[in-house]
Amino acid sequence: MLIRYGVSTGFASLGSVKNCMLASSAVFRRQQFLIRSLGGYSDHIEPRRMQDIRSMSGTTFEADAENVMREITPVLDPSKHKGQAGKIAVIGGCREYTGAPYFAAISALKIGADLSHVFCTKDAAPVIKSYSPELIVHPILEESYNISGLEDEERRCISSKILAEVDKWMERFDCLVVGPGLGRDPYLLECVSEIMKHARQSNVPIVIDGDGLFLVTNSIDLVSGYPLAVLTPNVNEYKRLVQKVLNCEVNDRDAPELLQSLAKQIGGVTILQKGKSDLISDGEIAKSVSIYGSPRRCGGQGDILSGSVAVFLSWARAKGKATTSQMNPTVLGCIAGSALLRKAASLAFKDKKRSTLTTDIIECLGRSLEDICPAC
Amino acid sequence: MLIRYGVSTGFASLGSVKNCMLASSAVFRRQQFLIRSLGGYSDHIEPRRMQDIRSMSGTTFEADAENVMREITPVLDPSKHKGQAGKIAVIGGCREYTGAPYFAAISALKIGADLSHVFCTKDAAPVIKSYSPELIVHPILEESYNISGLEDEERRCISSKILAEVDKWMERFDCLVVGPGLGRDPYLLECVSEIMKHARQSNVPIVIDGDGLFLVTNSIDLVSGYPLAVLTPNVNEYKRLVQKVLNCEVNDRDAPELLQSLAKQIGGVTILQKGKSDLISDGEIAKSVSIYGSPRRCGGQGDILSGSVAVFLSWARAKGKATTSQMNPTVLGCIAGSALLRKAASLAFKDKKRSTLTTDIIECLGRSLEDICPAC
Repeated sequence: MLIRYGVSTGFASLGSVKNCMLASSAVFRRQQFLIRSLGGYSDHIEPRRMQDIRSMSGTTFEADAENVMREITPVLDPSKHKGQAGKIAVIGGCREYTGAPYFAAISALKIGADLSHVFCTKDAAPVIKSYSPELIVHPILEESYNISGLEDEERRCISSKILAEVDKWMERFDCLVVGPGLGRDPYLLECVSEIMKHARQSNVPIVIDGDGLFLVTNSIDLVSGYPLAVLTPNVNEYKRLVQKVLNCEVNDRDAPELLQSLAKQIGGVTILQKGKSDLISDGEIAKSVSIYGSPRRCGGQGDILSGSVAVFLSWARAKGKATTSQMNPTVLGCIAGSALLRKAASLAFKDKKRSTLTTDIIECLGRSLEDICPAC
Repeated sequence: MLIRYGVSTGFASLGSVKNCMLASSAVFRRQQFLIRSLGGYSDHIEPRRMQDIRSMSGTTFEADAENVMREITPVLDPSKHKGQAGKIAVIGGCREYTGAPYFAAISALKIGADLSHVFCTKDAAPVIKSYSPELIVHPILEESYNISGLEDEERRCISSKILAEVDKWMERFDCLVVGPGLGRDPYLLECVSEIMKHARQSNVPIVIDGDGLFLVTNSIDLVSGYPLAVLTPNVNEYKRLVQKVLNCEVNDRDAPELLQSLAKQIGGVTILQKGKSDLISDGEIAKSVSIYGSPRRCGGQGDILSGSVAVFLSWARAKGKATTSQMNPTVLGCIAGSALLRKAASLAFKDKKRSTLTTDIIECLGRSLEDICPAC
């Protein structure tokens, strides 16, 4: 079954929300106000809309992820040349974290991208390079400890150089992944904010995860109104985002509605809310991916997801309006990335059980994609 | 079938070119002028020549690559000592790139060379060393950022030291590979230009790829008239080379003729033009390698090719006039290198499909050569 664009564009009715919430609570009243002010709710709803809303929590709400994958994954063609299957860049990797950007960047290659870059700090670079000769690692970012004692003017000069270095490459990238192993150093985050602004000016899609979400939650303008931004929060990151943007608490029972209003409030960015089921919304449509999966929660799986979403999103964008579903390419990218990670994780778990690590899951990405969408 | 030297020494006739080109275009007129001025064209051509030209686009134009490989690969003999099966040096590896020189150098060993060296910058060396204990890595090159603030005299002194360091080894090498992961730092490229001049004085063959092609395209004198130079451009690198040397645009329909005139114009260097089929010419003969191959275009395959060509070229040179084909050893090296990479890539793809990476292809080099040319 191919997914149709806009199947579930409505929000849950106030009535249905009432049934499952404590109507007298302050939190509820704030949510009610917010969702009303976003134009999504109506006290009076037609029977058809009710049906759509019910189906959001039923089977049609679940994305047909395997078909999405088949539809957006490009045919391999010997006449193509290097770069045409995708060029991804990960912005992340600092003195503390080096595994996360590697996981994101190598996952992109394992799925089928041609080139995968990492822009990280000078300290992180040799380590990330040593994980794999397949990645192109640029040691350009700086953390505060490395520039302490410098005058403001010198610090600005270093920032400009960093930005110029990334700008040299920007137009060549099909997608940026911002956040894996980024850390929270204020000077570094300031530089990364500028990189994101430049990416936005160049219309380069940005997948934001990990510490990138910390940055964005505190500076929502960086992504607000940018339809090529994808946020991939886990439970806690999502909570903080909802508190900051919607000024309310997360309620599991109205998950898709809340997600949809959050995405709409940030001006139509796409959000992939990670959980037992992954929920995806761009403010217009909400979809769920529940297939496969593994009970193992080793760190690093989010990085695989961000790299995977970047590749699928690029492929979906390249297809343009050619997809049968005509769904937003960012949503298609999230559906495919989510399903592929879940399948790879389930395959790895079958073999390694409790000892499953992120590298084991990465090793299963190729076979998982091949099972669903054979290369030839 | 053994390839005969000089089967297709002529260029395509003006008549045949006219049939498949826009005769009125400025590009065509410029090409026509150039090819005439190179002495390759004649308005009046004999029937025999016409037949040769036609065969260039037909089956006889395709190299008998497996036989070439069998002919030039040396017999393994327990009485030989270390180094006799080839000593290769890769000049490349800088702060930004470390994977490319590793791929080139390790490929040389995997094919059967005895020793593989890398001359790179100080920053790149520990990382390249960490990829494999099999390589001999010399941390001697310098980039501008590392010598900024020095007087001209000091910079010249450092250049001399670098050159002296490479010179100590030069005579021992059977082939240099210049370019994988070299980067484009002006100071570094200046040093590498000097290294190339010394290699030329010592009659050491040079395979030039990646940023080495950027250097050579801007300083064509470095290779002009040197028959032991091999250039291995991809689509874009080839376009730039044609624009610079022949001052015209690339036209797919006359690919072998244009390649041949380019190689002739640079004074008989050998060019391996990478593409769906690989085209090879030394200005006298043009050959194609179309067997095997994979539709995967992950970055790094060009580095395997440059390392492979270096080894096969050395072996072909060692055979001297003993090859039945009596073809130029640089052309034989290119044919064998191209075919081996294509076979290894096809084997790796069979197993790994879309997730095939360059390291997977390198792992298939040994089996690919063994299939065609068993060690014993």
